[in-house]
Amino acid sequence: MRLSRYFLPVLKETPSDAQIVSHRYMLRAGMIKQQAAGIYTWLPLGFKVLRKIENIVHEEQIRAGHIPMQMATIQPADLWRESGRYDDYGEEMLRIEDRHGRDMLYGPTNEEVITDVFRSNVSSYKDLPLTLYQIQWKFRDEIRPRFGVMRGREFYMKDGYNFDLTKEDALHAYNRHLVSYLRTYERMGLQAIPMRADGGPIGGDYTHEFLVLAETGESEVFYDSAVTDLTFGDRAIDYDSVEQCQGVLEEFTSKYARTDETHDEAIFNEVPEERRRVARGIEVGQIFYFGTKYSESMGAKVIDSEQKQVPVHMGSHGIGVSRLLGAIIEASHDDNGIIWPEGVTPFHCGIVNLKQGDEAADEACEALYKALTNAGLEPLYDDRKERAGGKFATMDLIGLPWRITVGPRGLKNGVVEVTSRRTGESEEMTPEAAVAKIIEIYEPHRVSGL
Amino acid sequence: MRLSRYFLPVLKETPSDAQIVSHRYMLRAGMIKQQAAGIYTWLPLGFKVLRKIENIVHEEQIRAGHIPMQMATIQPADLWRESGRYDDYGEEMLRIEDRHGRDMLYGPTNEEVITDVFRSNVSSYKDLPLTLYQIQWKFRDEIRPRFGVMRGREFYMKDGYNFDLTKEDALHAYNRHLVSYLRTYERMGLQAIPMRADGGPIGGDYTHEFLVLAETGESEVFYDSAVTDLTFGDRAIDYDSVEQCQGVLEEFTSKYARTDETHDEAIFNEVPEERRRVARGIEVGQIFYFGTKYSESMGAKVIDSEQKQVPVHMGSHGIGVSRLLGAIIEASHDDNGIIWPEGVTPFHCGIVNLKQGDEAADEACEALYKALTNAGLEPLYDDRKERAGGKFATMDLIGLPWRITVGPRGLKNGVVEVTSRRTGESEEMTPEAAVAKIIEIYEPHRVSGL
Repeated sequence: MRLSRYFLPVLKETPSDAQIVSHRYMLRAGMIKQQAAGIYTWLPLGFKVLRKIENIVHEEQIRAGHIPMQMATIQPADLWRESGRYDDYGEEMLRIEDRHGRDMLYGPTNEEVITDVFRSNVSSYKDLPLTLYQIQWKFRDEIRPRFGVMRGREFYMKDGYNFDLTKEDALHAYNRHLVSYLRTYERMGLQAIPMRADGGPIGGDYTHEFLVLAETGESEVFYDSAVTDLTFGDRAIDYDSVEQCQGVLEEFTSKYARTDETHDEAIFNEVPEERRRVARGIEVGQIFYFGTKYSESMGAKVIDSEQKQVPVHMGSHGIGVSRLLGAIIEASHDDNGIIWPEGVTPFHCGIVNLKQGDEAADEACEALYKALTNAGLEPLYDDRKERAGGKFATMDLIGLPWRITVGPRGLKNGVVEVTSRRTGESEEMTPEAAVAKIIEIYEPHRVSGL
Repeated sequence: MRLSRYFLPVLKETPSDAQIVSHRYMLRAGMIKQQAAGIYTWLPLGFKVLRKIENIVHEEQIRAGHIPMQMATIQPADLWRESGRYDDYGEEMLRIEDRHGRDMLYGPTNEEVITDVFRSNVSSYKDLPLTLYQIQWKFRDEIRPRFGVMRGREFYMKDGYNFDLTKEDALHAYNRHLVSYLRTYERMGLQAIPMRADGGPIGGDYTHEFLVLAETGESEVFYDSAVTDLTFGDRAIDYDSVEQCQGVLEEFTSKYARTDETHDEAIFNEVPEERRRVARGIEVGQIFYFGTKYSESMGAKVIDSEQKQVPVHMGSHGIGVSRLLGAIIEASHDDNGIIWPEGVTPFHCGIVNLKQGDEAADEACEALYKALTNAGLEPLYDDRKERAGGKFATMDLIGLPWRITVGPRGLKNGVVEVTSRRTGESEEMTPEAAVAKIIEIYEPHRVSGL
């Protein structure tokens, strides 16, 4: 993309109403625009990152054997009356009356709809195990939306639901989700720690929240610092293997790590003192096993191998897709702006032309642009007639992890400059070497999309 | 995907409430499930096609230089009061009150929001031309939703908006959209004819609807049969070239082709009688130029080169993404089911194992599955222990354009059978040749996604 043809409305001043850094930077970098309290338009740069995150989530869910689909945002109230949650849910549910006076609602979550899909189509244990998921907009009418996309009212979320014959199978599905979530967050450059959590209104005997450590987190968390040494890496996992998934769960959850809802001071005190940490975290996902709660109330039953009708065991599993943008920025920024991890950056590399209009510089930039584009990468070429300082400031603010700087002086020596946004370190090399370097960096970060 | 692990709830019986063939087949093939009148859950097979169509639309919009973004579904009523449409829009608008009693609505279209985005961020003619678009869910509270996804209440649509300094520039944007739409529909295997249309509630001096001919179409259309001979093909277009885009528009709109709203019997009678056609069509897109209608009422102005404040010239341009599934099926099916065009098929190829459990057959199927998958294609392998007839019926119903049939008898001669869904013709060849053939067929139909 050439910046002269893009829509990137960056702001020089910090918006006064934004309290946390991710909200400030998303507004300043022209990623979002507020349309109403907690409701945002995703401007082109924000939408690009949102889509990258969405694609990573899809890839990892499909890798785990989960099946994508999509539910409508508007749902009939009657389904929620069946489960008993229509009255329970309270004012966070956006209730709507259609033109015929029928009670509808904007789905805040989808246990009812998915259970209805299941019971209408599945009747035999032979069709199990089954995990269906979607990434779709949801609405929760928060009384005080704040922190930008971190606590919005309309938000984008992956929600998945497993249907299993037995509790044992459902716990394998639970573990499979845990493993796939670890992979998902790591691909986004995030360390999200699974912490023992509380079931809350969805209910759930087993549940973990995934938390990203950040000063601005809404939750207080307590953990053994040894959990932050764990990484999933690119280990091969057979998602069908009960042992392998269970093994990963044990590895990542055996150390103390809890939110304040489940914190137990006595157990925490057994952690060696030098490893005890109290910090704040941002919740970016949660997994639940809740047994037969919805299948009983809504009649989602199958015939088992002995011809008996039994309610299926279910769980639901969420990733806060739009919220992740905020969480990533909270975890990765400096005073000059955002620092995108390579896995989710909106453009792979910035190209800054120090002297637009200079024949050699223009030509070199065009050649870099073409070479990177032909390699399947997306560079952002700042081809505007602006001074270099302004161009650097914009690139720093929007946070592309790599920048190639091209100027007449360097070109005389046959070199351009490649700069890391994270370290600030620069290296001179030939344009060909610069292209090769950027291609190599992104080799492990290809997202195919869906 | 192995069918034994997929969620494909096909129905044997034809649902009684579905009046048209696309609705019947989408229900029978397990693509959608109705949740309320005009509101559907997109089951896995339906979601796959929806996503393919979405990706083609994205690719072609980006190719034309248009910039993707995303607006929220829920909008404040105040923006619509500014444009004067809040009261005009009538009962089709889903009106909502949030917990604080503020008037909101579920966006049926987005001229107001996009104009607000524009006026908040653009103030100089130097930032023009600009075309922003999104693909997002919309809601229109139709009094009588019908025909499945063809006239639903919640529907998925691409809506794009151009902002230009002059009428001339805006008409180039109009032409650019026309060209990109022609490419888009052809990639989906559709012939969509641009027809002169009526502005309707959005207003518009220039507007064309794109119609797919089908007996079940809601609109009566009148055209010169010569328009159906036109194809866009894979001609190279420079979307910046005013002449090229204008040339395509003239080529595709100079022959008589109108909906009943703009039909003129006198002009129609000038078409040679043997080429006069009266038929029915399904609207799958519409482009508008409406000048300064919204920019005046909402104050979307820029400074021109003479420092004068002028309202921008706008247009809006839509493609009915979810409706397209219905339109494609109406245009491409037979008595046994859907026939997907290669560009949008949910799986590229079916693999039918005639004798599941036979060692040679199982092995050959696995090898085919692996080879196709490694080539970046998605086969659907029917690995269930079912009789061949049932497997064929399912493949025909869900409409994969190509099928490879594998059985012990053929394998003894070293061959499998490749069958075209469209022609029904089969050809025997080695498994290697079958893989090569399928790969070659899909070479021109790669979609990279977004």
